[in-house]
Amino acid sequence: MCRWLAYTGSPILLERALFSPAHSLIDQSLHSKLGAEATNGDGFGVGWYDDAPSPGVFRSIEPAWNDQNLRELAGHITSGHFFAHIRAAIGSAVQQTNCHPFRHGHWLFMHNGYVAELPTVKRDLVMAVDESLYSEIAGQADTEILFYLALTFGLQDDLPEAVARTIGLVESIGAKHGVKYPFQGTIATTDGHRMWAFRYSSEGKSRSLFFTGSVPTLRQLYPEREVLFEVSEDARLVVSEPIGNLPGAWHEVPESSYGVVGGGDDQLHTFRVKPPTATVPVPA
Amino acid sequence: MCRWLAYTGSPILLERALFSPAHSLIDQSLHSKLGAEATNGDGFGVGWYDDAPSPGVFRSIEPAWNDQNLRELAGHITSGHFFAHIRAAIGSAVQQTNCHPFRHGHWLFMHNGYVAELPTVKRDLVMAVDESLYSEIAGQADTEILFYLALTFGLQDDLPEAVARTIGLVESIGAKHGVKYPFQGTIATTDGHRMWAFRYSSEGKSRSLFFTGSVPTLRQLYPEREVLFEVSEDARLVVSEPIGNLPGAWHEVPESSYGVVGGGDDQLHTFRVKPPTATVPVPA
Amino acid sequence: MCRWLAYTGSPILLERALFSPAHSLIDQSLHSKLGAEATNGDGFGVGWYDDAPSPGVFRSIEPAWNDQNLRELAGHITSGHFFAHIRAAIGSAVQQTNCHPFRHGHWLFMHNGYVAELPTVKRDLVMAVDESLYSEIAGQADTEILFYLALTFGLQDDLPEAVARTIGLVESIGAKHGVKYPFQGTIATTDGHRMWAFRYSSEGKSRSLFFTGSVPTLRQLYPEREVLFEVSEDARLVVSEPIGNLPGAWHEVPESSYGVVGGGDDQLHTFRVKPPTATVPVPA
Amino acid sequence: MCRWLAYTGSPILLERALFSPAHSLIDQSLHSKLGAEATNGDGFGVGWYDDAPSPGVFRSIEPAWNDQNLRELAGHITSGHFFAHIRAAIGSAVQQTNCHPFRHGHWLFMHNGYVAELPTVKRDLVMAVDESLYSEIAGQADTEILFYLALTFGLQDDLPEAVARTIGLVESIGAKHGVKYPFQGTIATTDGHRMWAFRYSSEGKSRSLFFTGSVPTLRQLYPEREVLFEVSEDARLVVSEPIGNLPGAWHEVPESSYGVVGGGDDQLHTFRVKPPTATVPVPA
Repeated sequence: MCRWLAYTGSPILLERALFSPAHSLIDQSLHSKLGAEATNGDGFGVGWYDDAPSPGVFRSIEPAWNDQNLRELAGHITSGHFFAHIRAAIGSAVQQTNCHPFRHGHWLFMHNGYVAELPTVKRDLVMAVDESLYSEIAGQADTEILFYLALTFGLQDDLPEAVARTIGLVESIGAKHGVKYPFQGTIATTDGHRMWAFRYSSEGKSRSLFFTGSVPTLRQLYPEREVLFEVSEDARLVVSEPIGNLPGAWHEVPESSYGVVGGGDDQLHTFRVKPPTATVPVPA
Repeated sequence: MCRWLAYTGSPILLERALFSPAHSLIDQSLHSKLGAEATNGDGFGVGWYDDAPSPGVFRSIEPAWNDQNLRELAGHITSGHFFAHIRAAIGSAVQQTNCHPFRHGHWLFMHNGYVAELPTVKRDLVMAVDESLYSEIAGQADTEILFYLALTFGLQDDLPEAVARTIGLVESIGAKHGVKYPFQGTIATTDGHRMWAFRYSSEGKSRSLFFTGSVPTLRQLYPEREVLFEVSEDARLVVSEPIGNLPGAWHEVPESSYGVVGGGDDQLHTFRVKPPTATVPVPA
Repeated sequence: MCRWLAYTGSPILLERALFSPAHSLIDQSLHSKLGAEATNGDGFGVGWYDDAPSPGVFRSIEPAWNDQNLRELAGHITSGHFFAHIRAAIGSAVQQTNCHPFRHGHWLFMHNGYVAELPTVKRDLVMAVDESLYSEIAGQADTEILFYLALTFGLQDDLPEAVARTIGLVESIGAKHGVKYPFQGTIATTDGHRMWAFRYSSEGKSRSLFFTGSVPTLRQLYPEREVLFEVSEDARLVVSEPIGNLPGAWHEVPESSYGVVGGGDDQLHTFRVKPPTATVPVPA
Repeated sequence: MCRWLAYTGSPILLERALFSPAHSLIDQSLHSKLGAEATNGDGFGVGWYDDAPSPGVFRSIEPAWNDQNLRELAGHITSGHFFAHIRAAIGSAVQQTNCHPFRHGHWLFMHNGYVAELPTVKRDLVMAVDESLYSEIAGQADTEILFYLALTFGLQDDLPEAVARTIGLVESIGAKHGVKYPFQGTIATTDGHRMWAFRYSSEGKSRSLFFTGSVPTLRQLYPEREVLFEVSEDARLVVSEPIGNLPGAWHEVPESSYGVVGGGDDQLHTFRVKPPTATVPVPA
């Protein structure tokens, strides 16, 4: 299933977000409280933006709490925009190519949840991926297929539309195969400047999703927390599960919604899935 | 910390003991109930006896619930005498050479517990290992050092004596360094025919240890359990934590005791630690 | 690219074939002489038959010369019918799911060579895999796709026909995309009783392939070699590259041929590729 | 055995030194020309200095040519002072804790070579490590022991003296045990500002060691090489084996010598081993 965390704001060492807080993401790899599985030890990944043209990605199948290299890197890599993900595998192998986040160009994509009955629907989904993108698929995870469907549907041009059509296709193909609740989860994706985070499930009981709000307000609430004074005012965290023992700091994303953060312009919108229309045929 | 399991009896596929039972050892790698840590995902190992002169050992740092190779091997390796161990690391690296069981000649050795404040006492302990054995130490785990101390003290000739002197030395060196409770745990060791299992801690609150008793009795208690009719009457399981949902099948090893099983001759004895005497000097 | 070895005959410890011989397969993982790449350190796999309903498979991404577990298992697993493969990756990730041999039911399949320009042709190939088999594909290796195409074309019923149609499809799709020499390599596959080994390339310059012949003849040639007297008269080795320093023991499989061994009935046949006919449409 | 590379100068992406050059260190992991073993696939490590108080270290047992994470990191980590090492293991396990470089505080240490007959001499060497340092030893590699001996002998105060006494002890203990040529190799160590590189062997036939000289001179020699104009004039590379196809750029370090670089002050000195004196007793 997984837990994930996304940060945007002034540059910080990754460890400030990944290791330092109480009940950090790394703690959650061992003992998550809100997740469907308590342990998320089936690998992890971090993706971060810096001056390079595309984001760096570090992924490993070692449980996150064990991985000495992750600690080292988190203590030396500074970034103002990064994703981190810890994995509890459902149905696909534990291997580096199945670890999130996935990358395409300067985009990153990660997910907590699943595509139901993947073996049944996978072929139809994969066949809908644009031919020019197909050979980039390196693993077998449902999330990677979602990403490539979203790219097929124009993620780089109109992201919410692309995600809506992606999940619409998943639900349509699921219905065709008699799958009751085809889609579950929260999705995060970014181009290095803006981050989109979606919360939706076919069943209407979605994985959890939280974000932080105004930093000046947090500074008033928690004047003793140094980290709040080290980051910029537009700094935001988006997480599967709250970290840092900061009750009151977190706003829950409602069901069937998506948020956008980055650069101080926070948005929250209703999310509606877009089923395929006649012009987008469902593969026979 | 860990959980472990030992089997002796007629040959069975390893998976019958490792995977098949309810709340199996592999389940415990993810969700242990009695252990000091719930998750034991810092590696695993199995050691088994067959016709070869020494036991085979398979160890990996992958969490046991993930490891596809372990499932494969467990479905193909048959043995009448084997050890399995899942690890929750305390204080030494997660690496193959720190996974139990440890092997020397035809002996295997594993442990659930720890030597307290290992960095403080390690040098004194290692210096007490016989020179001829020292270079065999391949890792940095406290258990491996215990094994080599026991070999130094004549494990192959008088095993309970050797273990008693080993823990005696640990406690003596601990006292020298102001360590309150130097030793904790259950130890299992075997030569391929007899298995010894010890339960002791300096504090008197030891890790759990259970064994099965008479197979005919179990067959009466659980007539629907096929596996009980497939194994020999002298088959025994010794475990950190009961498996298989067989209440009534398990006898708890008392504090400060050790048991011996194998070949139908079950024994239970009081265990007393042997501090070093003047003739066995504590290293200065 | 890889090197592989297959054995059929009376049961032997895997290590007799994998480690013991001069210039063994494991030696070839470090220093192959005939291969396109000298080092084959991108993982390995063994698949072996015993009493279990399907063969066991052990695969790892560690270089074979390093892997302590492989040495252990090879010293404890006895089999009369097994495959071993060491990998030099071309174009797909080094991960366990891309290691050979691949398994389906009681079949194993491995390959030394490649499908040329895989990113270009992969989608068309994968779309030709039968829907009922598609979701079993666990990795991204060209060889796995070949296997599932062969299963689609009836490998379990008429194996040479299925392989002929598989390579025929590869060549046809390659031609459609302007690939000059679409297929290269040697393929080995088995159901646990008979082994088929193919040598073919679109270019007519195929990877090497050798097999042993009559054991009584070998015993005369090499009376000092104990292993020849330990195995049955119908024992055969099929290899990418000769092992064991037994000049004269090896027969080269000619270009565009396939052999069948197992149970003493050796066959050698011409191999002709079967392009798709109108009734087997090439995906548009 | 290994190959290693050290860089000091203006900050560059690690990949400029590790991947980009012809016959780069990563190429050498697959096909070294000067090394005792052609393949160095038993793990790798990089240690780099940045603004953090101590250097970052990334080590892995995957062969360097395979490791996707290494490529990622090398494309995102910039440093003006770093070590990189690829390993061909002799006699100790392939595990992360046996990969170089080793770190203590702000020091890094790596080595190409070996301590001869390590199992015979290891105990005596390890017992000479200062008690306060002993428990830091995390692995079983000879190089790690050399490092901790050098720290014991005052590496942080008088480095050449400490290394001289370290090798002096190795040779003395070797002589005690009848080892003909106890020490072989090149050693590199740094505090983040200055780098020391030693070339010595008991036999007088040492592993190779090269360094670059004046950057302005190199710019004249190779005006088409952009990288030479991107780095500072005090930039230096020290390597086991020349990279980058720049004949004439490399100066060989003579036998029994050591060099010091960093900050533009290049030095070359004779190196003489210092055997233990009566005041530094050889452990009995």
